[in-house]
Amino acid sequence: MSKCKVCKAPAIIDLPRHNANFCGEHLQQLCRRQVEKAIKDFRMLEPGERVLVAVSGGKDSLAVWDLLVDLGYQADGVYIGLGIGEYSDESGGYAQRFADERGLTLHTIDLRDEYGYDVPTAAKATRRVPCSACGTSKRHLFDRAAHDGGYAVVATGHNLDDEAAVLFGNTLRWDIDYLARQLPVLPGDEHFPRKVKPLVRLTEREMAAWCIVRGIDYQVEECPMAAGNRHLGYKETLNAVEARSPGSKASFYLNFLDNMAPILAESRQTVVEGLGLCERCGAPTTAGGSTGPGGSTEGGAPRVCAFCRIVEKSAAHEPVPVELVTTQRNGRRR
Amino acid sequence: MSKCKVCKAPAIIDLPRHNANFCGEHLQQLCRRQVEKAIKDFRMLEPGERVLVAVSGGKDSLAVWDLLVDLGYQADGVYIGLGIGEYSDESGGYAQRFADERGLTLHTIDLRDEYGYDVPTAAKATRRVPCSACGTSKRHLFDRAAHDGGYAVVATGHNLDDEAAVLFGNTLRWDIDYLARQLPVLPGDEHFPRKVKPLVRLTEREMAAWCIVRGIDYQVEECPMAAGNRHLGYKETLNAVEARSPGSKASFYLNFLDNMAPILAESRQTVVEGLGLCERCGAPTTAGGSTGPGGSTEGGAPRVCAFCRIVEKSAAHEPVPVELVTTQRNGRRR
Repeated sequence: MSKCKVCKAPAIIDLPRHNANFCGEHLQQLCRRQVEKAIKDFRMLEPGERVLVAVSGGKDSLAVWDLLVDLGYQADGVYIGLGIGEYSDESGGYAQRFADERGLTLHTIDLRDEYGYDVPTAAKATRRVPCSACGTSKRHLFDRAAHDGGYAVVATGHNLDDEAAVLFGNTLRWDIDYLARQLPVLPGDEHFPRKVKPLVRLTEREMAAWCIVRGIDYQVEECPMAAGNRHLGYKETLNAVEARSPGSKASFYLNFLDNMAPILAESRQTVVEGLGLCERCGAPTTAGGSTGPGGSTEGGAPRVCAFCRIVEKSAAHEPVPVELVTTQRNGRRR
Repeated sequence: MSKCKVCKAPAIIDLPRHNANFCGEHLQQLCRRQVEKAIKDFRMLEPGERVLVAVSGGKDSLAVWDLLVDLGYQADGVYIGLGIGEYSDESGGYAQRFADERGLTLHTIDLRDEYGYDVPTAAKATRRVPCSACGTSKRHLFDRAAHDGGYAVVATGHNLDDEAAVLFGNTLRWDIDYLARQLPVLPGDEHFPRKVKPLVRLTEREMAAWCIVRGIDYQVEECPMAAGNRHLGYKETLNAVEARSPGSKASFYLNFLDNMAPILAESRQTVVEGLGLCERCGAPTTAGGSTGPGGSTEGGAPRVCAFCRIVEKSAAHEPVPVELVTTQRNGRRR
């Protein structure tokens, strides 16, 4: 039986990239240290800062919430009911129980109740892939929840596997704009909260182990609308590379941050042009009015943000059940 | 039975990335056009220029030689006998027969006869992976052959699969220096010939088909010393990505050249410091004397190039048969 590298107690997990096994106690120590290191190295948070955690009910978002509270941050959660059938109902239950059992504050937003649509309907109504309509909706509502609640920072549960897979996709295309934005911290400004990813030094497997050791029940299923998308294909590819050469995934992502991100930051155009306010919801948006980029192109059209355009189309559409929305060819890019 | 996209004759090859099938005649047309486009886009050669082709006896180097002659260049070959057992004997035979049958000039160099060593022995004597000692030897001898024969340019048979796999390895590590040098043309100067890779827009499979259609016999085996190396692993990984999404491999490599290479060129330190002449062979080298980088570190040591250091150690070593040299963990990087 394998033993913990630190204390020689029976190990519960082997981590080939660290060439070591760990017991539950020292796995937790490793996770805490990696999160502390990420927060410190990338200047994600100030000690004791109020943080809004974007919670999906999956292992990563519950783990990052748990870790931030454990490390002394004032972390509240926000959950968005996306209306993806049973999957969403169950996910919301995991998030709420996690908060209730620990006496934590969870803000909840329901797309159908509050905005008159859900993600399957939005996908159909906007003729966009589900992950695209979903991502736009979540980004907008997390920003708004942070603004309304007075949180300067939003934390998400993106882990090393997530970030490495997105990086891999962007690298396959050498999409310089996406590559330049792929950072573990996006700085905030007068319009937007800072976005931080405290789990970028930890893998999916480590997060699953964290949840088990900490007694956290979470949604185990993948989102049914994401099944078969490219992002999951990139994860599989990187897992095959990692299996051959443990540590490859971490060095791929972390060396990018160390070696390439500074070069891209230098060459990048950082000016956001034409930021204005949405005439419907008042949110900051790069969408233009009649002449601006990305907005409606008709003469005299109002300035409407991408979220309000989704709401407009989707709320007018009859509800579409999950099963009717195709899961093919979901290119999830950031 | 599938038909040629161009002339509707029976097809001999399907090319999913072009979403088309081709007959022998129009496969040749495609290959010629892709080579012409590479030569033109990357300014590899002047019309009718004298070229020295680095020939291994495999499909790619014989195909590039054939294509360059076919396109009107004055292309001679140079073959290096690496002493890798039967593999080298056979490879040299393919190269010589190709030249003889077409009345072309092939220069040959034999490592054992002329320098007193072979690649297996060099690997053992220098304690480097075989691909490393082999690459250093070949680069030196191709440069020298070009210099001695008055060729301003050396062409190699590196194809899209080769370049994409090397790019993938360098990207996994985000090795900026290697990435910045990974170009289809390395300009020449007073010391070194220009290096060009006319096949970068064509795949291994297309090159194999070219050879079959053109009646070129070639060494089919992979080098026994390269078996299991990382480079081949990266090719497999990219082939899996390509199978899921045809065209990924080409866009990975070509978008790198279009989008990223210019950014790297800007940020790169281009100054080669301390270039001097090897005191043994007179070749230009970055190796220093007693105080220079990369050279011997002992006080008063002579300036000796990497090739002469391999010769020195290897020629003094008793010959090592191929079978005794391990094939594990050959990280072939450029």
